Amino acid sequence: MSKPTIGIALLGLGTVGQGVWKHLADKRSDLETRLGVRLDMRGVAVRNLRRTRSVRLPKQKLTTDSVALIDDPKVDIVIELIGGTTVARKLVLRALRAGKTVITANKALLCDHGPEILAAAQASGGKLLFEGSVGGGIPIIKSLREGLVANRFDLIVGIVNGTSNYILTRMGEDGLDFETALKEARTHGYAEADASLDVDGIDAWHKASILAFLAHGKWAPRARTLVEGIRNVRSADIDFARKFGYTLKHLAVVRRDFKAGWMSVGVYPALVPSDNILAKVSGVNNGITLRGDVVGSTTLAGRGAGGDATASAVLGDLVDAILARTRGGIVDADLHALTRAGKSLRMADEDEIVSPFYLRMTLRDTHGVLAGIYRIFAQHKVSIARVVQYEHPDKGTGTLTLSTYPASERNIAKVVAELSRAKTVLEEPMLLRIFAT
Amino acid sequence: MSKPTIGIALLGLGTVGQGVWKHLADKRSDLETRLGVRLDMRGVAVRNLRRTRSVRLPKQKLTTDSVALIDDPKVDIVIELIGGTTVARKLVLRALRAGKTVITANKALLCDHGPEILAAAQASGGKLLFEGSVGGGIPIIKSLREGLVANRFDLIVGIVNGTSNYILTRMGEDGLDFETALKEARTHGYAEADASLDVDGIDAWHKASILAFLAHGKWAPRARTLVEGIRNVRSADIDFARKFGYTLKHLAVVRRDFKAGWMSVGVYPALVPSDNILAKVSGVNNGITLRGDVVGSTTLAGRGAGGDATASAVLGDLVDAILARTRGGIVDADLHALTRAGKSLRMADEDEIVSPFYLRMTLRDTHGVLAGIYRIFAQHKVSIARVVQYEHPDKGTGTLTLSTYPASERNIAKVVAELSRAKTVLEEPMLLRIFAT
Repeated sequence: MSKPTIGIALLGLGTVGQGVWKHLADKRSDLETRLGVRLDMRGVAVRNLRRTRSVRLPKQKLTTDSVALIDDPKVDIVIELIGGTTVARKLVLRALRAGKTVITANKALLCDHGPEILAAAQASGGKLLFEGSVGGGIPIIKSLREGLVANRFDLIVGIVNGTSNYILTRMGEDGLDFETALKEARTHGYAEADASLDVDGIDAWHKASILAFLAHGKWAPRARTLVEGIRNVRSADIDFARKFGYTLKHLAVVRRDFKAGWMSVGVYPALVPSDNILAKVSGVNNGITLRGDVVGSTTLAGRGAGGDATASAVLGDLVDAILARTRGGIVDADLHALTRAGKSLRMADEDEIVSPFYLRMTLRDTHGVLAGIYRIFAQHKVSIARVVQYEHPDKGTGTLTLSTYPASERNIAKVVAELSRAKTVLEEPMLLRIFAT
Repeated sequence: MSKPTIGIALLGLGTVGQGVWKHLADKRSDLETRLGVRLDMRGVAVRNLRRTRSVRLPKQKLTTDSVALIDDPKVDIVIELIGGTTVARKLVLRALRAGKTVITANKALLCDHGPEILAAAQASGGKLLFEGSVGGGIPIIKSLREGLVANRFDLIVGIVNGTSNYILTRMGEDGLDFETALKEARTHGYAEADASLDVDGIDAWHKASILAFLAHGKWAPRARTLVEGIRNVRSADIDFARKFGYTLKHLAVVRRDFKAGWMSVGVYPALVPSDNILAKVSGVNNGITLRGDVVGSTTLAGRGAGGDATASAVLGDLVDAILARTRGGIVDADLHALTRAGKSLRMADEDEIVSPFYLRMTLRDTHGVLAGIYRIFAQHKVSIARVVQYEHPDKGTGTLTLSTYPASERNIAKVVAELSRAKTVLEEPMLLRIFAT
């Protein structure tokens, strides 16, 4: 019996694309033996044929015509690594509608056009894989969809943006301020020139949204998701965290209340108890904890970004895709049922999302100022757990740091709004969530 | 189209078996919807029909006749949870030879009879799943076989025995001695009356052996594996560890040198740098780090033992098994190729396994005693990195604690043998490995 040939097209040859090409070239004969197939690299679509790249590949493999490459009848599997949501969307839909298997690491695409793309995948028999979209090389999506499939998850919490985690690690361990740490991240290639997707929490939100969908079958609307980045974090916050046994991390948090029928999705900097395993996930690493009703808490951690880590995830998907095509497959059989299950789910409202909080604010140091501040908390039923410090960095001003007992997002928002209006409060107060399982 | 019916037989109704039954009953309709099948629980084989159990199940489902249950033509999937290697081996082979899919969490069985069982699975089309055998609910086997399939792993290191980890955690964090911590583990149900499988490293060895096979295609012979438990660990060792930035953990370590063509497998207590994520894996949890050439280091951690954690793994396998039977499957397609690849691999010899060491010894406190001790190290080319302390707990004796630079297992064994013979050394020296990536 002759081996079946699997035709592969690669769209995009950026960092991840180059990593995929390199490792695929290295491991090709390994994979061919293991899978019992012949791999035929049909071509690589790029925007610029002449750009210098770190991988060598035959010139005739390069093309600028993505559509023709996708339409090549010998192409079975399309790996989309161009990013963006316009061209990528068209190409992915085109490939799926032609019955090809699509592998993508494009979290923005899934997040913005998830229902449309999944419907197309469903219609063509279920051929969409996207392990590389969340957690870099960590097999989080496979674990969620397959390994832990018997579980219902009431909590998914993770560090999903390597750039932010690198910056917070450098600020915490080495005392850098935000701007210096960001500059350093750029020097090491961990942050783009425009780092806002990373440090403003957008990238983390995309990933949280994908995890929430995979666990609960519902795409969280952006408007109902709390999205905060790390731009406003100061050394004072990190010092506070450490002093009281916390580590400051940028978290993605997906909660579900099975009884009340809601889910909540948020990404924000938070104080994580230092004995939590996520507190040990440092540098550009990612770490995600899934809490299931059968398995308890399971954490996966590893390199969350970079061409090689994501390439590993893409190659894992490629192996699944090939096995699915040659032996009849398991690929996303569950997504349809999942989407149906998600229909009855609603987003939590602000009364239902509850946690302890940390606040730091700069006050005009006048007589009775603290009494006035505390009254604002009391009026909105937020109880102060601990007034941590009241310092006087400059004459006439004081910095107040405190933590609260668990309070709802609605009530704390009222407190912050009123504090912002108070004449004795000199800057916008800094609000951080304290992560509690 | 009517839904296919999948017949399931459960062998054994101990802690894990009861967990599987309970969660399967809870999630049955969920799984049936998701998988598009009807699940038919054909029966549960037990030794004693009258024993009281925490789960309720219809009396007519219980049987003592495992063979008849396996032979039932309506049984498609056999879940083996009886443990042991004699009866379990016969039943597993019988089921595989009849073309049924077998799910097992029996690490001793795989370890002792792996080649025979895998050959039977291979002959019948590859129908063996065993996620529950390592790491409890952590999807480590799926991650290794599927998610990270594009990687070659030069290092697999993990905490794979929850009982030992619980004992070491209690000793380290709360100052208990070994016996007290063990007693407490028994009280909580974390250790059997006979805890030797756990505390002497046998259970960890079984798991290391399975991981080594899955990564490298070779079953490590017991005689070529270093197996040490935690019985001889003293508070002094844990204190030393902490003082110098280490946490004492019982590790399973699988290394591979791709150039030299060897692998090494060892389980032993070791000093782990406290900033390593494994140092944060405490209590009955397990944690395993896989270092792959593409993905870098990925760590999975979670509840390593207990009926529910393992039940989660078994149910994950069950879903894979059902999908494989109904849609044509992916199950262990790789094991045959893997076994072939392992044929050219040899076990490392004692010159090739190298690490820094920690030694604690009790000395007769006489003139020149240290000079004599140091000479023994020098003779065998082991360099002392740091003499940590030389204390005098009793008159006339001294306790010497030191660490070495990286040395081979062969050389350190010579040092220890000679120390044991030396008249100035009063007890068998305590040797611990210092884990270095």
